[in-house]
Amino acid sequence: MKNSSCCTKPPFMHDSRTKKTYCKQHFTELIENRVKKAIKRYNMIEKSDHIALGYSGGKDSTVLLHILTKLNKPFSKVKITAVTVDEGIKGYRDESIPLTKKVTQDYNVNHVIVSFKELYGSTLDDFVLSNKEKNSSTSACAICGILRRRAINYGAKSVNATKIATAHNLDDEAQTILMNMLRGDSRKFIRLLRTPVKKYEKFIPRIRPFVMITEPEIVLYAKANNLSYHSYPCPYAYSAMRNDIREFLSEMEEKRPSTLINIVNLHDSIIGMIPDQNKKEVKTHYCEKCGEITNSKICPVCKLIENHNKND
Amino acid sequence: MKNSSCCTKPPFMHDSRTKKTYCKQHFTELIENRVKKAIKRYNMIEKSDHIALGYSGGKDSTVLLHILTKLNKPFSKVKITAVTVDEGIKGYRDESIPLTKKVTQDYNVNHVIVSFKELYGSTLDDFVLSNKEKNSSTSACAICGILRRRAINYGAKSVNATKIATAHNLDDEAQTILMNMLRGDSRKFIRLLRTPVKKYEKFIPRIRPFVMITEPEIVLYAKANNLSYHSYPCPYAYSAMRNDIREFLSEMEEKRPSTLINIVNLHDSIIGMIPDQNKKEVKTHYCEKCGEITNSKICPVCKLIENHNKND
Repeated sequence: MKNSSCCTKPPFMHDSRTKKTYCKQHFTELIENRVKKAIKRYNMIEKSDHIALGYSGGKDSTVLLHILTKLNKPFSKVKITAVTVDEGIKGYRDESIPLTKKVTQDYNVNHVIVSFKELYGSTLDDFVLSNKEKNSSTSACAICGILRRRAINYGAKSVNATKIATAHNLDDEAQTILMNMLRGDSRKFIRLLRTPVKKYEKFIPRIRPFVMITEPEIVLYAKANNLSYHSYPCPYAYSAMRNDIREFLSEMEEKRPSTLINIVNLHDSIIGMIPDQNKKEVKTHYCEKCGEITNSKICPVCKLIENHNKND
Repeated sequence: MKNSSCCTKPPFMHDSRTKKTYCKQHFTELIENRVKKAIKRYNMIEKSDHIALGYSGGKDSTVLLHILTKLNKPFSKVKITAVTVDEGIKGYRDESIPLTKKVTQDYNVNHVIVSFKELYGSTLDDFVLSNKEKNSSTSACAICGILRRRAINYGAKSVNATKIATAHNLDDEAQTILMNMLRGDSRKFIRLLRTPVKKYEKFIPRIRPFVMITEPEIVLYAKANNLSYHSYPCPYAYSAMRNDIREFLSEMEEKRPSTLINIVNLHDSIIGMIPDQNKKEVKTHYCEKCGEITNSKICPVCKLIENHNKND
């Protein structure tokens, strides 16, 4: 039988995609090479970029901070600022903020904290509570998604960043593709997620350097490199449909390695075949209240705030 | 609350897509209308057609025979021939053949039986046995798929049919789309399955009139109309990946009705956006042994037979 070990050092993990066993050091290189490959494949970063890195202190964004600063070291051409959003979730985020401060100091990386309380006048806990009182069907995750996105943009703009990097991984990516398919949302299905595009004035393109590595690989990388991260699950986290899809896909990936990357590759090649005129985004406006880019007269952030302040 | 019953007759089933309760008669009409809609949407049938209907005696093809002869009645413009393939599966197909003879007589429909034994000199049982003895990894379903397809073509040609109708339903269709996605097979993913296309000389276009109705709807239709069908599962039936996908999708459809039709609709709109030059099929040849259309020098049917007869 063919020897499938990387070297003579103690084995750390078996990679089912390459069918090889790796020691800690070679596994670390394997993952970093996959990140480099993704950055190159989708033209994610240019030397003149200033990257605002969404950093929550959780495992994915901690590994992203570690890898991007490490890959950047030989040249230090690219400027990196970590942006942490403090949603104001009691017993969850208030515990991770001190950790993010310490880690960014250790890495010697500029750090910006944007809090919902400062930006919107209320914490996520406040929004969720008033939403419940108004019997709204909008989930905590949907509210948080809208407000977080804006908060990261705000942090990125405050330092004149040219790109926003998020730690979305291969699992997230495949789940989103499948979710849009199961919802029959062809507009979202054919949207370019992986190649950063400067779509409009005031828009900061987003990049996803982890689009080719899986969630279990990220956990193992953090372990191999002794990274400290915050690992409590968010008390609000729940998306029924995404959970079903996550469970199904991770089972399929375990049984048939490469399922996740197959989905992303197929999606890439489909999108490559579709002429640009089909990919036109819906017409954009600028919100009448705050001036931010949106699809409607009033942006979702202003709508949420308006609704939250009603009858208070 | 809005009354969601179709009429005052006893309720027979609740349709989660239209959120209405139907009596037997209105449910029957609902299903037949969905079949008509699919036939029209994909231009499946022309008045001059002679349709070879793949009829195994199982629930799906029995309902297909019933609905197509019923829809055809007012005009009887379209000629229909039922084609039954006798694969030679002991204790399974030998029990359903007499039923198919009786039913086609009752419907007064021309009936052709094509047996593997006559066509290939051996039954499926023989092929599976010799395959096992040769330690081949090809599954019984894969062998049967190749031989059945050719056998149905053979039966269709023997009566000069212009189309072949199969009872593939919405579940099958959504499973296939997802399976091609999970395998990353973009060539198969963008293949036109639902619109019949006369691709080459000697090719009989295939139609799938049940592409817009689900498996449970077919079972209920058979019940509502007291149809007799053969319901034993095939002793060889097993496809691990399709089973996983089937289970996942039927659970998603139950939790979120319209998931299956969403997948097919999205797939339609994606395919509609892709220019024809990307959809080119692989170059076709004619088999050096039997002269049938294939992608290689020797077609898979001749390869199977050759392998089967080796060292016999």
